[in-house]
Amino acid sequence: MHSPVGGQNMLSDIEIAQGAKMLPIADVAARLGLGEEDIELYGRYKAKISARAEQRLSGAPDGKLILVTAINPTPAGEGKTTTSVGLGEAMCKLGKNAVLALREPSLGPVFGIKGGAAGGGYAQVVPMEDINLHFTGDMHAITAANNLLCALIDNHLQQGNELGIDPRRIVFKRCLDINDRALRFINVGLGGKVNGVPREDGFNITVASEIMAILCLAEDVDDLKKRLSNIFIGYRYDNSPVFVRDLGAQGSMAALLKDALQPNLVQTLENTPAIMHGGPFANIAHGCNSVKATKLALKLGDYVITEAGFGSDLGAEKFFDIKCRYAGLKPDCTVIVATVRALKYNGGVSKENLKEENVAAVEAGIVNLKAHIENMHKYGVPVVVAINRFDTDTDAELKVISDCCEQLGSEFALSEVFAKGGEGGTELAEKVLLACEKPSDFHLLYDVEDTIQNKVTTIAKEIYGADEVVFTAAAQKQIAEIEGFGFGNLPICVAKTQYSLSDDAARLGRPQGFSITVREARLSAGAGFIVLLTGSVMTMPGLPKKPAALSIDVVDGKITGLF
Amino acid sequence: MHSPVGGQNMLSDIEIAQGAKMLPIADVAARLGLGEEDIELYGRYKAKISARAEQRLSGAPDGKLILVTAINPTPAGEGKTTTSVGLGEAMCKLGKNAVLALREPSLGPVFGIKGGAAGGGYAQVVPMEDINLHFTGDMHAITAANNLLCALIDNHLQQGNELGIDPRRIVFKRCLDINDRALRFINVGLGGKVNGVPREDGFNITVASEIMAILCLAEDVDDLKKRLSNIFIGYRYDNSPVFVRDLGAQGSMAALLKDALQPNLVQTLENTPAIMHGGPFANIAHGCNSVKATKLALKLGDYVITEAGFGSDLGAEKFFDIKCRYAGLKPDCTVIVATVRALKYNGGVSKENLKEENVAAVEAGIVNLKAHIENMHKYGVPVVVAINRFDTDTDAELKVISDCCEQLGSEFALSEVFAKGGEGGTELAEKVLLACEKPSDFHLLYDVEDTIQNKVTTIAKEIYGADEVVFTAAAQKQIAEIEGFGFGNLPICVAKTQYSLSDDAARLGRPQGFSITVREARLSAGAGFIVLLTGSVMTMPGLPKKPAALSIDVVDGKITGLF
Repeated sequence: MHSPVGGQNMLSDIEIAQGAKMLPIADVAARLGLGEEDIELYGRYKAKISARAEQRLSGAPDGKLILVTAINPTPAGEGKTTTSVGLGEAMCKLGKNAVLALREPSLGPVFGIKGGAAGGGYAQVVPMEDINLHFTGDMHAITAANNLLCALIDNHLQQGNELGIDPRRIVFKRCLDINDRALRFINVGLGGKVNGVPREDGFNITVASEIMAILCLAEDVDDLKKRLSNIFIGYRYDNSPVFVRDLGAQGSMAALLKDALQPNLVQTLENTPAIMHGGPFANIAHGCNSVKATKLALKLGDYVITEAGFGSDLGAEKFFDIKCRYAGLKPDCTVIVATVRALKYNGGVSKENLKEENVAAVEAGIVNLKAHIENMHKYGVPVVVAINRFDTDTDAELKVISDCCEQLGSEFALSEVFAKGGEGGTELAEKVLLACEKPSDFHLLYDVEDTIQNKVTTIAKEIYGADEVVFTAAAQKQIAEIEGFGFGNLPICVAKTQYSLSDDAARLGRPQGFSITVREARLSAGAGFIVLLTGSVMTMPGLPKKPAALSIDVVDGKITGLF
Repeated sequence: MHSPVGGQNMLSDIEIAQGAKMLPIADVAARLGLGEEDIELYGRYKAKISARAEQRLSGAPDGKLILVTAINPTPAGEGKTTTSVGLGEAMCKLGKNAVLALREPSLGPVFGIKGGAAGGGYAQVVPMEDINLHFTGDMHAITAANNLLCALIDNHLQQGNELGIDPRRIVFKRCLDINDRALRFINVGLGGKVNGVPREDGFNITVASEIMAILCLAEDVDDLKKRLSNIFIGYRYDNSPVFVRDLGAQGSMAALLKDALQPNLVQTLENTPAIMHGGPFANIAHGCNSVKATKLALKLGDYVITEAGFGSDLGAEKFFDIKCRYAGLKPDCTVIVATVRALKYNGGVSKENLKEENVAAVEAGIVNLKAHIENMHKYGVPVVVAINRFDTDTDAELKVISDCCEQLGSEFALSEVFAKGGEGGTELAEKVLLACEKPSDFHLLYDVEDTIQNKVTTIAKEIYGADEVVFTAAAQKQIAEIEGFGFGNLPICVAKTQYSLSDDAARLGRPQGFSITVREARLSAGAGFIVLLTGSVMTMPGLPKKPAALSIDVVDGKITGLF
């Protein structure tokens, strides 16, 4: 996907991963104080941590919480997961008890455009093939629960439709964990009377299912059931809302999700413990690993490194204002990952020319980093900037960044974890450890009791730098409806391009004098947020002309061609 | 589902299962001579047996192979799995080293009409909830591989359709492991140019996917890849066939199926080892657990008890002529499960009146049992009839059965394993052990090199008792096409009603003077058989008015309401 410092002779990710010296996962667990009865093994190198262990640890003190976020990225991404993994490894090298809390990957990208979600180079989580394929079955459980609900909805229509559900206005879609554009818009229930009620439908990719967001915000099974029961399915003919609780589907859905709700334990290439659990979309959902994983990591580690999707305008904002709000988390440090490449990109250089030295472009693009640093300061948490270093970076270019950080009072470190593992992240780790000793005065950006319009306006002005928010007529109507249903007091989840602070992907750097247009409002009553869409969002990706699937194989019992 | 001897105060299946005294599965494995390195744990009570263990054992002598089949059943089923489980437990009670080789259940029935597939009463395989929900993820892996193939097909259409695939004649369907009638007939690829090529499609339930049949017939990963590459996808515009190998999808599909290919080890309530692996439909597929599971069980046990779907006319015939043919298996004993209820049903008594004594009806229905005994004798394997006993059975009714068995030279035993576990199956076990000492002269029914018409005519005459086979014009055309593609020499898989020896569900007992009508021929070139359909076959069930899903819940961390 991206090849920071390391040179052309470096092994591929899967070659590095398959050469890893993994510890039995029971040993990794034991180092964290987890006994045999605290884990359920899934093979030798994966485990789920039991609810009993969570309960036993509930009174233990919390470690420090470190969020890894980023500036607005290039289309290739800037290596947040890689930096997170390397930072955890580096802390362990420095003798600290660090634990990672990360998102688990979806099958979609694995078979689509090459790109895994378990880090890269010498900063990976392993066993890489397992994690990127079925892992412990969490995605499949979500798919099954989602589609059980859909089958129950369609069966309700077929069996007399006692609730009076309008088949034209069912908003909850089916899902599969795959990139399959042909399933975006479909007609179901065709073929006559015994084969269902015809209606328009579609599939999302599993990570875009509201059930994924719910799994990631649920505190325990009871909270899971409560959130599932609150999922908004669609409308009755009389325009009133129908929820999962009206169908009574939450119990069987929870039965399917019971094991998936427990966090997974794996390790990095250097045996740093990693709790990988959940991975919702970062546009129509909040884009962070599960609350349970983060809370458990805080009980097990003195330092917990976690991440949030996209740049800080989307990922960190939602991490703070949705996840931390619900879970009562208080971050101690925010790491902003940047690359020279991405700053040049934000300075107007095209994708093809990012390798050439261009100090002027870095100087032009540095405003993007400034915006992210200033935004993160607004939450009251110390900031460290991590430069994910590439071979092509020059000293002059790097100096532009260090000068900027100095000017804004933010710490700065180079990271070479892709090529060197934890060894390449010790400078960063030392800066982060120092930042964690500073006082953190974490506070949320808005009050949920404010109106929907005011809440999103606060986000748009404070974080995106917009002058105002414009609401289309359709969005105004939907917002009024959501308020009418009694859900006006939920946090906001903005779906916006990740490439710009604005809602226009072409406006790079730090746009000024713009407005944000809210085009649509969707109620995720189960997850517990209101999604405001500023453009069209793709919730079912497609495969490219040459899918990665065509290079993947099993040879002599080993999986080959996986990125 | 069914409540044989046991009385009204007996606990429910899930209550019995949750009270089980399970051994750690590593201990069950150890008793079979499997070490820690031979298994991959999936929690404490489930494991997959490694390919390395299979290789290591490949030179070991085989145990005796016992097939459990049945007469034509009532709609409630006659307890083949329960009898299999109880027989294995009874053999262990008698000091024998018995191992079960069984099918793993689908999620569909679990949430549809109450009914699990892990036995019943005191003859169950455990952990019952896990086995009936996600188990070790095999079903999900098949679903993922199936739908990856479909996404690659639709992506091929979208990206220029180099192979010239005719979107109107793609025969390979998507799948989900759920009962969902609204997905039987759908239109996909709607919504304009960027959202795929519109075409008609549909979903099968996962167990009806050809990939399930392939997984169950594959000898190893290489054979799996070969069979996957042979899957017939559909037609080009020029009428030539397109296979998976033309798309190059077999490698990534195999990567998704690599772990699912390994057999699962669990145990019965009495700690008898059970290898549960694979479970294809018994109409459009062959209806038995995987070849790998059966072969491995034969290496590990002195006695292996396995089962095949529906009555012997479908299940046993396919077990012998498809599975044993491909795998080179030689059964040593065939157990035919019968119930007094089913014989009365075959004697013309309605479902509602099966509990009342009716010796005349048993005498009328006994011809069905006779047919199954005579049919099984044709394969040259000793037969034992097992009566799955119900409270309502009378001595006079049972005497009709024992007289029939005596007349045909078949052994006979009562089984009360539902109420008593292994204790209730010792008489049956003793008879089976004796039968296994008799010479078995197993032979197949037909030569695969014969014509398709001749092969199915042999089955219809020898097993169903038909006078002739009629082929519709459509079927004749399809058969000619399959022969033209070069697949005429595959074994035959007949899809037929399970309620009658004929192709008319209403003709009970032992129908005479009838013909079998083949209405359609389908090529399962990957699995390696030709499906001949004698009527319409439902490959995606629907949910009933009150789905079992609505009674299932998670309370205090325990799953409730599962049957």
